[in-house]
Amino acid sequence: MVYIIVVYDMRADRTRLMLNFLRKYLTHVQNSVFEGEVTEGDLETIRNHTQTLLNPDESTIIYRIGSEKYVDRTVIGEDPTDESRFL
Amino acid sequence: MVYIIVVYDMRADRTRLMLNFLRKYLTHVQNSVFEGEVTEGDLETIRNHTQTLLNPDESTIIYRIGSEKYVDRTVIGEDPTDESRFL
Repeated sequence: MVYIIVVYDMRADRTRLMLNFLRKYLTHVQNSVFEGEVTEGDLETIRNHTQTLLNPDESTIIYRIGSEKYVDRTVIGEDPTDESRFL
Repeated sequence: MVYIIVVYDMRADRTRLMLNFLRKYLTHVQNSVFEGEVTEGDLETIRNHTQTLLNPDESTIIYRIGSEKYVDRTVIGEDPTDESRFL
């Protein structure tokens, strides 16, 4: 398994496409930010499918971190995932 | 040194505050996303100062990753940092 953080920059009226897709794999932690642990196969699916969702002027960055233990997460201010698992 | 990714969720008319601050330390890679290598001292400064910039309904997440070598970054679509250094 690997730990990934996905951030995306899309037109406001199109973000639902990405939201509905990424929710199947990851936790929605902030406006255009998802994170979670996935298999390498899921990561490949996420890479390929996000590409099909983007218009030319939009982008996604996927940070693949070898393992959760390398990531330390600080939330400042309101945390929309209060009820979800933390790192 | 440590590698950090900072994402923030603020009202559109207030994001310039965060942008101008984080630019002193990090690379602006996407709409509300910065990343880069910083000292532990800088990280502490970033944690403390971002807290003062936020309104109650806004948030920042700081991912601290032990070293760049643990992070693999995939950009899909338009990369606003084309001219900058990649991981």
